[in-house]
Amino acid sequence: MVRGARNEGGRLFGALSRLMAMPLHALAADVLPSWNEGPVKQAIIDFVTRATTKGGAGFVPPEARIATFDNDGTLWPEQPLVQGAFMLKPLRTRVKQDSSLAKRQPFKAILEGDLSELSTMDKSKLMKVLGVTHAGMTEEAFIREVRAFFQHARHPRWNVPYNQLAYAPMLELLRYLRANGFQTWLASAGGIDFMRVISEETYGIPPQQVIGSQLKKTFDDAHAPSVLRREARVAHVNDKAGKPVGIDEHIGRRPVFAAGNVRSGGDIQMLQYTRKRPRPGFALLIHHDDAAREFAYEEKDGASLKAAREGGWAVVSMQRDWRRIFDETRARTGNGRG
Amino acid sequence: MVRGARNEGGRLFGALSRLMAMPLHALAADVLPSWNEGPVKQAIIDFVTRATTKGGAGFVPPEARIATFDNDGTLWPEQPLVQGAFMLKPLRTRVKQDSSLAKRQPFKAILEGDLSELSTMDKSKLMKVLGVTHAGMTEEAFIREVRAFFQHARHPRWNVPYNQLAYAPMLELLRYLRANGFQTWLASAGGIDFMRVISEETYGIPPQQVIGSQLKKTFDDAHAPSVLRREARVAHVNDKAGKPVGIDEHIGRRPVFAAGNVRSGGDIQMLQYTRKRPRPGFALLIHHDDAAREFAYEEKDGASLKAAREGGWAVVSMQRDWRRIFDETRARTGNGRG
Repeated sequence: MVRGARNEGGRLFGALSRLMAMPLHALAADVLPSWNEGPVKQAIIDFVTRATTKGGAGFVPPEARIATFDNDGTLWPEQPLVQGAFMLKPLRTRVKQDSSLAKRQPFKAILEGDLSELSTMDKSKLMKVLGVTHAGMTEEAFIREVRAFFQHARHPRWNVPYNQLAYAPMLELLRYLRANGFQTWLASAGGIDFMRVISEETYGIPPQQVIGSQLKKTFDDAHAPSVLRREARVAHVNDKAGKPVGIDEHIGRRPVFAAGNVRSGGDIQMLQYTRKRPRPGFALLIHHDDAAREFAYEEKDGASLKAAREGGWAVVSMQRDWRRIFDETRARTGNGRG
Repeated sequence: MVRGARNEGGRLFGALSRLMAMPLHALAADVLPSWNEGPVKQAIIDFVTRATTKGGAGFVPPEARIATFDNDGTLWPEQPLVQGAFMLKPLRTRVKQDSSLAKRQPFKAILEGDLSELSTMDKSKLMKVLGVTHAGMTEEAFIREVRAFFQHARHPRWNVPYNQLAYAPMLELLRYLRANGFQTWLASAGGIDFMRVISEETYGIPPQQVIGSQLKKTFDDAHAPSVLRREARVAHVNDKAGKPVGIDEHIGRRPVFAAGNVRSGGDIQMLQYTRKRPRPGFALLIHHDDAAREFAYEEKDGASLKAAREGGWAVVSMQRDWRRIFDETRARTGNGRG
C-alpha cells in the first residue's frame, strides 16, 4: 500500500508530538520491560518521576523514599506457602517424638500436605508451628537449615528452587525504585529469619531490611560462642494491623510506596498506612488472576479489592499487566505451564 | 649536645623503620584526633585496618561490617539521663490528673528531680514511665514533643542542648568506621522513638539504624490519616540480655564491633555477643573516670570491668584516652569545666 506524502507527514508529526509529551524516563530504555504498557505501569513511573523531580509538588527527599513489599504472593508465589513446605520435614521429625501433634491443627493440615490453605491461615498459628519445630535451636543452626531447604527443595509445579520463582516484573520494580534512591524493604507475615537467609540474593534486600513475624529468643552466654536460642513463643505477628507496627518498629518512618496482594487481607493495613497519610503514598495491590501462567484465586470477602477501590490503589492484574511472570533464565523451566 | 653523624644515621634509620612498619592508615592524617595515642586508639585502628585488608586473616566482608553503639554514657553523658529529663514535664501534667502517681516509684524520684539514679534503674520501669506519660499519643505527636524538648531543654551543667554533648572522640569513631564501610547502629536501652528524632543529626545514624526499648503500639485506621498510637505496655526492653535479642531482631547479623560503658552492666551481653563468636569481634568499654571534664563513677559490683578483663575488651579511660570530651564548636560552653 502506497501512502501519500501528506499522510506520512501527519503521522510523523503525530509521533513526534507523542514523543515530546512523554516524560524523559520513558525515552530511555524501558525500565520495566516485563510490564505491559497500561495505567498501572504508567502510574508507577509517574509516581517515581514526581518523587525524584526536585522542586516539584510530588518530590520526596531521598531519606523518606521508603518502599515496603509483602513477600508471599507479592514477590513470589504463595501456592504452596514456601515456609509451610519448609516446616514439613522438621514437623515430621517432631511428630515421631510426640505423636499427639499429628492430631492437632494446624500440624495435621501440614502433615497431610494441605499447604494451600496455609496462606490464608491466621499467621500466629503458623508462627506457633515454627516455634514447635525449631524450639531451642540456635540462630546459626536455624540459618543452616533454611539454607539447606532452599538448596534442595523444589516447587511442585515448576520443579525449581523456590527462590528462583521471584516475579520478574517485581524484581524490575525493586531495581527501578532503588535506582531512584528508594530503600526497599520486605514486610512479610512470614518468619523474619527464614526470609533473611535468601532476601539479599533473591531480591537484593539485605537482612537488616527484612521485617517479619518473630519468635521470642533468649541470649545464652554459658559457653563460647555465645548464642541466641529460639523459643516456642510468638513475639510479633507481622500481619494485618501488625504490619504497620512492625514497619514502624524497624524503620521508624512511614513508607511512601507499598506493595501487597489479594489473598487474606493481610496487606490492607500496610497499604492504608502508606496511602492514608497527610500526603498519600503509592499503594500497589497484586491480583492473582492468571491460572495459565501462575494461579487464579480470590479473597472470600473481597476486602482487599474493596479497599483498593475506595483508597485509589493501583491494582495489578497479573494476566493483563505482566508480560511475563518469571525470569526464564533464572527459573529455567519457569514458562508457567509446567 | 653535639651528636656524631653515626648516631644521627642510626636515629634516622630507626625512624624510617618505624615509619615503614606503620599501617598506611597511620601515615595519613590522624583519623581519631580527639583520642590520645595509646593502646586503645591503636587497637581500634589495628582492628579496622585488618577488617579492611583484603586477603588478610582479619578481613571482614563489607556486608558483615556491623557496629553497634550504646547511647547513654557511651555516646553522650548519662547524668542526668536525658530521657528522664524529657519525662519530667509530661509526668507533672499526668500527676495533676492522678495525684497517686506522685507517691509511687519511679515517678516519685523523677518528680523530685533525682534523675541521677535513673541510669542504673531497671529499664523496664523507665519504659513504664514513658508508657504512662505518653499513652494513647500518636507517633507523630510524640515526635513533635521530643523535637521540642531537644530545642528548648538545656543540660544543667553545660547549659547547652543535650544532643550537643555527644562525645567528640566517639563522633570521630563513628565517622572513621563508616569511612571504612561499617554500618553504624545505635543499640540503647532508651526508647527507640525518642532517639530516632535526633540520631541522624547528632550521630549520622538514620532512624532505621536505631534499636531501643519499645512500647506496644496499635494501628488506628478509623480516620484519615491512619495513625499508630502508643500504649502503656512495654513491648521490649533493650537492656542486658535484651540487647543481643534487639540487635538480632533489627539487623539479623552479629556485630563485629560494639561499644558500651560502665554503669549498670547493661552492655555486658551485647559486648559478649560481639566478642564471643567464632571469630571474636571488637568490644569497647568506656569507663567514666574524669570528674573534672565529665563525671567519675563506678559500678557497684564491677561486673563490666571484670567481664572486660576476662574477655579481652578494650577499656577506654576517659581521662587518659580522650584528648577532649566535647566538640567545643558544637557545644560552645562545652569545655568540660562548666
